[in-house]
Amino acid sequence: MSEKIQVAIKELKRVKPLVLNLTNYVTMDFMANALLAIGAAPIMSVCDEELEELIQICQCLHINLGTLDKDFISRCDKAIAYAKEYKKPIVLDPVGAGASLIRTKTAQKLIPSCDIIKGNASEILSLFQDSGQTRGVESVHSTLQAKEQAKKIACEWKCTVVVSGAVDFVTDGYRESEINFGSPFMAAVTGMGCTLSAIIAAFRGVFPDSFDSAQLATTYFGLCGQEAEKKASGPGTFRTEFIDRLSNEN
Amino acid sequence: MSEKIQVAIKELKRVKPLVLNLTNYVTMDFMANALLAIGAAPIMSVCDEELEELIQICQCLHINLGTLDKDFISRCDKAIAYAKEYKKPIVLDPVGAGASLIRTKTAQKLIPSCDIIKGNASEILSLFQDSGQTRGVESVHSTLQAKEQAKKIACEWKCTVVVSGAVDFVTDGYRESEINFGSPFMAAVTGMGCTLSAIIAAFRGVFPDSFDSAQLATTYFGLCGQEAEKKASGPGTFRTEFIDRLSNEN
Amino acid sequence: MSEKIQVAIKELKRVKPLVLNLTNYVTMDFMANALLAIGAAPIMSVCDEELEELIQICQCLHINLGTLDKDFISRCDKAIAYAKEYKKPIVLDPVGAGASLIRTKTAQKLIPSCDIIKGNASEILSLFQDSGQTRGVESVHSTLQAKEQAKKIACEWKCTVVVSGAVDFVTDGYRESEINFGSPFMAAVTGMGCTLSAIIAAFRGVFPDSFDSAQLATTYFGLCGQEAEKKASGPGTFRTEFIDRLSNEN
Repeated sequence: MSEKIQVAIKELKRVKPLVLNLTNYVTMDFMANALLAIGAAPIMSVCDEELEELIQICQCLHINLGTLDKDFISRCDKAIAYAKEYKKPIVLDPVGAGASLIRTKTAQKLIPSCDIIKGNASEILSLFQDSGQTRGVESVHSTLQAKEQAKKIACEWKCTVVVSGAVDFVTDGYRESEINFGSPFMAAVTGMGCTLSAIIAAFRGVFPDSFDSAQLATTYFGLCGQEAEKKASGPGTFRTEFIDRLSNEN
Repeated sequence: MSEKIQVAIKELKRVKPLVLNLTNYVTMDFMANALLAIGAAPIMSVCDEELEELIQICQCLHINLGTLDKDFISRCDKAIAYAKEYKKPIVLDPVGAGASLIRTKTAQKLIPSCDIIKGNASEILSLFQDSGQTRGVESVHSTLQAKEQAKKIACEWKCTVVVSGAVDFVTDGYRESEINFGSPFMAAVTGMGCTLSAIIAAFRGVFPDSFDSAQLATTYFGLCGQEAEKKASGPGTFRTEFIDRLSNEN
Repeated sequence: MSEKIQVAIKELKRVKPLVLNLTNYVTMDFMANALLAIGAAPIMSVCDEELEELIQICQCLHINLGTLDKDFISRCDKAIAYAKEYKKPIVLDPVGAGASLIRTKTAQKLIPSCDIIKGNASEILSLFQDSGQTRGVESVHSTLQAKEQAKKIACEWKCTVVVSGAVDFVTDGYRESEINFGSPFMAAVTGMGCTLSAIIAAFRGVFPDSFDSAQLATTYFGLCGQEAEKKASGPGTFRTEFIDRLSNEN
């Protein structure tokens, strides 16, 4: 592993950033375990009344639309307002954008407020359209197909965009990076994409540059996947080994 | 493994059916991982506003009553209406029917709309009564005790009924099948029954015959459990190995 | 393992206590698996309408504030009223008390009704103050720092208090016990504290003395952690092995 990543992970473990997750019900357990394993401190909330206090003490706000509903969307709006007031960075994962209008519209509404957007190729492609680009929550496009769209979003909204897939792509509109690590098992484990977004949020909670944070986190994530694959015999054992690697690989 | 199952799994992986799950909060992570492992595409939703779109693109609607409340029940009613409109099959898991009146009544209300019902013996037995047959979400009856009741439900509502347990029983009122695979560890892992229902929904999303789908899915599920047991030393390692087997055993 | 614990576990497996969990969304899967592994029967509910029936059939009510909101708090109030009516013991885990006012105030409101309170040092310390003692859901204090506070709460409210951490402390104000088992991996797995509370609830569902139940459960939990560590190479494998140990170690 490169010295730059080793230094970053060491700093992350020293700071132990508190990441506030407004996220889906399906993958919050795996996400929380991944954040803890890497050395961050996760907190999940479903409660409007504590948002202001939690945003004051957190280092990064992480929003994931995986099981959104009207209350969740209203909570995101409030959280984003507080995050701006208290100058906390915001990472968005527009899960299932393209699969339903409410997911697409919500993602489109939130993007202008976010520092980093992480989606699969289909989700990223759907962000300038209204519907029908994704099939459920999985991508039917390759990262390559979404590169130009990612750059457009990054330029338009002055943010960093990460397209995750067999190859990952990170851009802030000026800089760009293709990341070619990972494992085929990663597509067979639920919440792997969600968890990448959470890890990006942890890095962004420590480092001020969104592009650097996203690139380092995505690289580290892929390297851990590559290592975990060596001890895995299927998606079940891979998931377990991957958490071990997130914790140890530094 | 029989050639028939191997062919079915191959077809399932080719089609990659999208299963829309309206399900409980406890086991959705395990359920999603099992669906992905077998080659299906899971999506979970808690949002009325996207139901129509998601039902249009899915191959099967899977309803699980494990953590129902009034909003959840109303969402199920809407989803079932859309599923009928768009001619999508419906699989129901009446978790905890018999443990509370609202679970029993909801299950009884939904049954007439469903293609396949999968419950443990106590749940199936409670479906013609009002309460008190189950102890929480676990069965206190044997599959054998619920066979006649399963056949009655199947005939009355023209559906397929699966009674899961140490021995599984599948019937559509005319055909019936006892399935004798599985592992004692399966009763020690949370959500094993829920996940069987999800896997049945994945098969039903690919194959038109409810009885065949239920029988194939239940057999495959049991065989994977049997194989997973060989590498497990407790319910924790069993759960991990089981996901590996769902993915590999074909 | 001491003979006393072996006898207790054997009795627990014989009784198979039904534990009703009003708990957070993040760790309910792990919690349910731990309860099943130890031989208890878990049920989770998010539904006011079934509370009375479920409390009648359960052996212990377990409340965990990890993802509280207004509806959840109102549900807890109702559940506690039923638990008193039907004379069922109540175990409370005030997750994140100190991190937000609503968590602290809710915990303070519920304590007088509870038989056992289990928190980390920061949570226990926050229970006589209003805010700011914890950082998210993790402790920034040592068990030692919270001992006096734990004894005060135990005396004031005639309950048993467990402070979990590298060293665990159990007191009912008269008796006290320091428990020095466990593994450093336990702090790296999400929901380990929540699950300890659930296991305490399972013991309390079988044994009438709150102090004894808490002490036995905490000791057993720590011993299982110690054993699991021997086969773990990180928090991922530790979590899996720990469930195996909960099931086997008797």
